[in-house]
Amino acid sequence: MTHEIAVIPGDGIGQEVTPAAVEVLEAIDAVDFDFVEGEAGDAVKEATGEALPQETRDLAADADATLFGAAGETAADVILPLRQVVGSFANVRPARSYPGLDAVQPDTDIVFIRENTEGVYKGIESEISEGVTTCTRVITEDASEKIAEYGFSYAKQNGYDDVTIAHKANVMRTTDGLFLDSASAVGDDRGASYDTALMDALAMHLVMNPQDYGVVICPNLAGDMLSDLAAGLVGGLGLLPSANVGEDNALFEPVHGSAPDIAGEGIANPSAMILSAAMLLDHLGYDEQGDAVRTAVESVLDSGPRTPDLGGDASTEDVTAAVIDEL
Amino acid sequence: MTHEIAVIPGDGIGQEVTPAAVEVLEAIDAVDFDFVEGEAGDAVKEATGEALPQETRDLAADADATLFGAAGETAADVILPLRQVVGSFANVRPARSYPGLDAVQPDTDIVFIRENTEGVYKGIESEISEGVTTCTRVITEDASEKIAEYGFSYAKQNGYDDVTIAHKANVMRTTDGLFLDSASAVGDDRGASYDTALMDALAMHLVMNPQDYGVVICPNLAGDMLSDLAAGLVGGLGLLPSANVGEDNALFEPVHGSAPDIAGEGIANPSAMILSAAMLLDHLGYDEQGDAVRTAVESVLDSGPRTPDLGGDASTEDVTAAVIDEL
Ligand SMILES: CC(C)[C@H](C(=O)O)[C@@H](O)C(=O)O
Ligand SMILES: CC(C)[C@H](C(=O)O)[C@@H](O)C(=O)O
Repeated sequence: MTHEIAVIPGDGIGQEVTPAAVEVLEAIDAVDFDFVEGEAGDAVKEATGEALPQETRDLAADADATLFGAAGETAADVILPLRQVVGSFANVRPARSYPGLDAVQPDTDIVFIRENTEGVYKGIESEISEGVTTCTRVITEDASEKIAEYGFSYAKQNGYDDVTIAHKANVMRTTDGLFLDSASAVGDDRGASYDTALMDALAMHLVMNPQDYGVVICPNLAGDMLSDLAAGLVGGLGLLPSANVGEDNALFEPVHGSAPDIAGEGIANPSAMILSAAMLLDHLGYDEQGDAVRTAVESVLDSGPRTPDLGGDASTEDVTAAVIDEL
Repeated sequence: MTHEIAVIPGDGIGQEVTPAAVEVLEAIDAVDFDFVEGEAGDAVKEATGEALPQETRDLAADADATLFGAAGETAADVILPLRQVVGSFANVRPARSYPGLDAVQPDTDIVFIRENTEGVYKGIESEISEGVTTCTRVITEDASEKIAEYGFSYAKQNGYDDVTIAHKANVMRTTDGLFLDSASAVGDDRGASYDTALMDALAMHLVMNPQDYGVVICPNLAGDMLSDLAAGLVGGLGLLPSANVGEDNALFEPVHGSAPDIAGEGIANPSAMILSAAMLLDHLGYDEQGDAVRTAVESVLDSGPRTPDLGGDASTEDVTAAVIDEL
């Protein structure tokens, strides 16, 4: 069986790390892929007026899964619609520290399960009078239950004992009250054990005691911030993969952006992108191969060549070759 | 001249740390205070049905400044109206690491200038149909300019070179677009140098490189989360004071809550509350005395008795006495 994968490198280092991930996937003998490339981002917007051309949307919609690199200024115009195109309701963001790598908190292994459809991301904004603007944050019971179901299942399947529901229901009593109640009800129905945490206090505890956390189920924007916070704990965005999971489609992307400061130099760290490809393998049912890629990346991070962001002087290609060697 | 100070200990350790701060203020010979105590929080709600009785509101409204300890379950019902009562538009939250204290990032000295009137804190929420709720986030040009003016002035007066404007204007284009544009315009008009940062990326950078940041000007909820994040960097909420500054009134409170787990044991760390009292001194124009209190707290943190949260076994009273001794 051949899997059709839409490949959207995008801008900046997206052009460098995406081919690296494709190379790694190609090196997996047990799985056949058909890679189809699509354009998105600043460059195509400059050329055509559109950051996300219809062909690229169709490509992602029709593929079995999508690999997306990064976009520059147009990031929101690309990734937010792409998340919709693949029908993603869950944004899965593992933040792990790796042995041998400098990290602010070397004992971190947390997976953020971020609601991926609503909150302030609904895009309902207006200027209601001069100098007065509003953004309508939407929280529904359906979406809150769905993300909680996903989060509790994920925790169980992946052996995480600690589940935390993040919220700010003391201030947003109606919206985050609904999020908290809906997510808690899912936990209760399953007889699962879980904690709830105010997102501000949680930010502090994650910094001080990340080892106390496993799976964190969050509203959309809170998940955006808390997962970046955790990226800081484990050594930066260069290491964080993510999956945008839908009912029967999904998109995989590094948490990092297009990094214009180092783009074109061939020194971008491909780890986050390759780890995103590992999540793609899991998603297609190739858990064993996904694990193999993760183990290979981990071993290279531990004792292989390192890109400058990790204090080394290796190139993207050196790291990619080393990962493939380990496979 | 005698300054009338409203003192609202509230619940839990608020009852222990607030008297400590009052003792410290009383030990300052150069300044005369008249302390008037008011009730607020869970206990008074249980007794009277109201978490913030009208007498307490009046007390805070009429005083020259207010010291507030903490409230339990009713925290939002107490502190949000109190911020309004004193007309506070700026929430000032310094996060510093102290020599000799364990900290995740020992080289941190950041002051969050949090907008204190709007955003999701307007409390405009509704259930628009069953299971579908909204929260209307409000951002105005006036409030955004005002907080930026305050932030840039604060940076200048307190010798901070780095000013950062936090926002999420790539997603909340209208509301955070307005916040970003208004705050940037203030910086430009002043010929000040500043950076702007997406709040998610900022969360990561603050964790990894706090020494790169000085004053951070933030929308309300972002300031809530980012300042707690920074509390985690410097050793926890037990060390973070805050000021809720208005045009001609102000309220001072530790960033920590009522800590029911240790309340009543006399072992709460009074540092955050005493440092809040130091901010009160600054606010009334006694900068020298404010500095003296900070120096005393710092010296006790460095080599004096420590409460259990900092690994010691001293009591609240021991620490307070040591601070007064140092004055
Ligand atoms: C680019 C931006 C719209 C996006 C988000 O806010 O979701 C990014 O920060 C992310 O986390 O993937
Ligand atoms: C208690 C709560 C309403 C409050 C807030 O969100 O502002 C608290 O977290 C704070 O930071 O002072």
